[in-house]
Amino acid sequence: MPPTRWGDPTHAGPLPDGVRDLVGLVLPLSDTPAAAEVAVPAPHLPAGLIDGLRAVVGEDAVVLDDDLRRRRTRGKSTPDLLRQRAGDLSDAPDVVVRPGSHEDVQALLAYAQEHRIAVVPFGGGTAVTGGLAPDREGFAGVVSLDLGRMRSLVALDPVSSTATLGPGLRGPEAEALLAEHGLMLGHYPQSFEFASIGGFAATRSSGQSSAGYGRFDAMVVGLRVATPSGEVRLGGTAPSNACGPDLRELFLGSEGAFGVITEVTVRVRPLPEVKEYEGWQWPSFAAGADAMRALAQGDLLPTVLRLSDENETAINLARPDAIGGAAASDQGAGGCLMIVGYEGTPSAVAAKKAAVTDALTRLGGSPLGAEPGEAWAAGRYNAPYLRDSLLDVGVLVETLETVTFWSNRERLYTAVKAALEGALGEGTMVLCHISHVYATGCSLYFTVATAGGEQPLERWLKAKAAANDAIVASGASITHHHAVGTDHRGWLTPEIGDVGVAVLRAVKRELDPVGILNPGVLIP
Amino acid sequence: MPPTRWGDPTHAGPLPDGVRDLVGLVLPLSDTPAAAEVAVPAPHLPAGLIDGLRAVVGEDAVVLDDDLRRRRTRGKSTPDLLRQRAGDLSDAPDVVVRPGSHEDVQALLAYAQEHRIAVVPFGGGTAVTGGLAPDREGFAGVVSLDLGRMRSLVALDPVSSTATLGPGLRGPEAEALLAEHGLMLGHYPQSFEFASIGGFAATRSSGQSSAGYGRFDAMVVGLRVATPSGEVRLGGTAPSNACGPDLRELFLGSEGAFGVITEVTVRVRPLPEVKEYEGWQWPSFAAGADAMRALAQGDLLPTVLRLSDENETAINLARPDAIGGAAASDQGAGGCLMIVGYEGTPSAVAAKKAAVTDALTRLGGSPLGAEPGEAWAAGRYNAPYLRDSLLDVGVLVETLETVTFWSNRERLYTAVKAALEGALGEGTMVLCHISHVYATGCSLYFTVATAGGEQPLERWLKAKAAANDAIVASGASITHHHAVGTDHRGWLTPEIGDVGVAVLRAVKRELDPVGILNPGVLIP
Repeated sequence: MPPTRWGDPTHAGPLPDGVRDLVGLVLPLSDTPAAAEVAVPAPHLPAGLIDGLRAVVGEDAVVLDDDLRRRRTRGKSTPDLLRQRAGDLSDAPDVVVRPGSHEDVQALLAYAQEHRIAVVPFGGGTAVTGGLAPDREGFAGVVSLDLGRMRSLVALDPVSSTATLGPGLRGPEAEALLAEHGLMLGHYPQSFEFASIGGFAATRSSGQSSAGYGRFDAMVVGLRVATPSGEVRLGGTAPSNACGPDLRELFLGSEGAFGVITEVTVRVRPLPEVKEYEGWQWPSFAAGADAMRALAQGDLLPTVLRLSDENETAINLARPDAIGGAAASDQGAGGCLMIVGYEGTPSAVAAKKAAVTDALTRLGGSPLGAEPGEAWAAGRYNAPYLRDSLLDVGVLVETLETVTFWSNRERLYTAVKAALEGALGEGTMVLCHISHVYATGCSLYFTVATAGGEQPLERWLKAKAAANDAIVASGASITHHHAVGTDHRGWLTPEIGDVGVAVLRAVKRELDPVGILNPGVLIP
Repeated sequence: MPPTRWGDPTHAGPLPDGVRDLVGLVLPLSDTPAAAEVAVPAPHLPAGLIDGLRAVVGEDAVVLDDDLRRRRTRGKSTPDLLRQRAGDLSDAPDVVVRPGSHEDVQALLAYAQEHRIAVVPFGGGTAVTGGLAPDREGFAGVVSLDLGRMRSLVALDPVSSTATLGPGLRGPEAEALLAEHGLMLGHYPQSFEFASIGGFAATRSSGQSSAGYGRFDAMVVGLRVATPSGEVRLGGTAPSNACGPDLRELFLGSEGAFGVITEVTVRVRPLPEVKEYEGWQWPSFAAGADAMRALAQGDLLPTVLRLSDENETAINLARPDAIGGAAASDQGAGGCLMIVGYEGTPSAVAAKKAAVTDALTRLGGSPLGAEPGEAWAAGRYNAPYLRDSLLDVGVLVETLETVTFWSNRERLYTAVKAALEGALGEGTMVLCHISHVYATGCSLYFTVATAGGEQPLERWLKAKAAANDAIVASGASITHHHAVGTDHRGWLTPEIGDVGVAVLRAVKRELDPVGILNPGVLIP
């Protein structure tokens, strides 16, 4: 059985020669015998309960197929891939259940609660923080609740610019349905091709156009959620109000631990008539970051705004299409590459571009023209494919991200870099970019590549823990848009405190008293 | 004892003659004997507990003074004023406690929990939905927790554009402290002169510049809260993240029921160099509303954007300075008046103004020049003073507000107007404006004026209930920015459902197990 790879096989390719020269290659991880030999464990769930599930959601909606269960095992973090490559499929669900409606989900939860079956909501399967690997102890078995049948445009209100989407819709499917009406959502995370609407909401995703279109949670107007304690509908009356706490914000980021999101109502926008992406060069990461800050604080953000640090600019990861082709030595520009993108009507793009160009020029940036921007746009979803190729030749590659206030950016950058380099040792490349900005702060997204060595998983877990500790010690957030899952759970308490954790537990008890929903995720 | 009036006595004046002609005046409500004769009830709280409070927060921080207790009784809704004018001071707190620090508040809550004393956080006292009139039953007494001593600029991070403010700071005080650093918050609700930072956060306030600067909850980056179960600090690590549910949004709008907000960290901005306000005329409320929608959906919002309906335009309440002066007959323009305001740097104001002017002209608006805008700006905080003068001459005047999606605006407008006119009968004036807009919807703010009659309070409560029912039946939100308090509590369930209410109760149990915090507020 070949290792699970990212995405569409026709998009994947062998590792470009240029990359081989950039990293120290040791072990071909894909050839471990385990990956080829180990089968999915047999379902633990008693046959009677499987029959019961069939009675609840229908015969066809209950799938025991080994291949599907294998593909519903864990997510797409490098540890997930390494475990799979090492033949460890111990987190495979016992059964995949594919409900067709909110009512199906509600009925499934009632049955699962009664029979103490753990339920793991599954959207696109692109989780990178262990959100699909539940604790099994104390449960009769684990159901992967695959939302792939709930993929419709439920409602559209063009006057109010809102659309209600099924949670199983993947990014391109949602955009295609909206495009039929001349509309779009505008949420393009790197996982766009495969991640789902429900997953975006459950994990507070943030996309590559967040400067212009906002984080996914900020796009959400309404939610419908099935919980073991009953249905919740929120945001159906108004965009915002003063009707007490905003409970939408409890379910956004709840990672399947409070309920299963069955409908998401989002703000939509007209399809942009114009899309222009360009490059800017900055003498340093700090100079480029200061320029981003000036734009954000001046309410002058373009649609896309990204900045690679010196290392990332040098190896050209900012342009994943070009990696290995036009390699490091080919980069004349040096310094730090910023990608600036404008989308909208011709007049709005022209006005914004004029104002941003003026500001960036004043701030010391040098325009590089459209070519770097177009190259970035062409390769914007390619990095995970590249990761598979790197793993194939024994390179350990993984990403992590964080967010903090502008005044803390440099300290955080230095601390995380040092933690990763310290943990992984000589020959480790640590690259970084800023891809999400706010008036008050920005994210930092790190990519690490190093020789895998004999125990790549253990090496990475140690490095990741060191990075997490450095993030907390720097006073930053443990995750900007990858969510908590099980991997970050141990570091959540510094974010929200003991009382905050107690509140999450109280909400969990109220909504999921038996604790069947994605057990072990999110809550420390 | 004279009735409690709004604000600074030097700003109040007799009712302009023009207004007397517009409304049917009957009873001089201010002259009821009760208002002059009834004293504040004696404190119920046993002397031993008062001594205990002194031991906890200091001798000087515990105030039994009748006048202060009277001024800490209820808020500033018309029912609050009518009860006061009728001599009903039954909701007076037993004692006013004025803590000086977060630690004081934490200690006070511990003592109050131990001795079952109800605690009502008090900021500016401008609540209009019964948020300061707690249930007393089952408590040893009621403490008004006056935050007026916690009025400092706790911290400023000019690089990140954040400021941490004490909860007792009133609007102008907060702005003055920030202005020393060339910064501002930009939150200007009608209660601006007296309302407090903590109150803005606890009630999800929204100001007259919300089009440009956003709702108060959207300005909040961080919160520090004292709860009976301990301290909560949120938002200290980053502007936004994916660390699970956003618990800030549980405390925003919690109206003192979950904890006492002791620090608020907000996004700040540079003081605007330019402020320009102007008027636009629209042939109808619908035409003006459609134009607002186009601006919001085109991401082309000015700083201030308001639209009065035909009635409000006619009696000139959109220009409170002019009411009675340039009265209805004086209005040549007719149709509906829109106020459009621009604030910022000269270049940003010029660019935005050019784009908005172009859009509004294309959409059918007629520019009225700066005069109506300047007049609005000069009188923007005057309406509550006018209300006192109207009550003096027997006119019942009150406001209520709601919010919905754009496609539901007309239906909501018609339904609420009909409900108010139906309940209050002939001779009732119902005015409306839109003062807060979103890409997906807008608020509707109604002002009602009618002859008070023999039982003005009972008449209003009946009309308010009818309006609430109409709002719920229309599928809109029961409040956009006035909060739930006790007045809207009976209508919260349709907003968030039974499960949503159960979640609020679960959070309340966790944070305030004895239920001492503002009992009876918010949660149905």
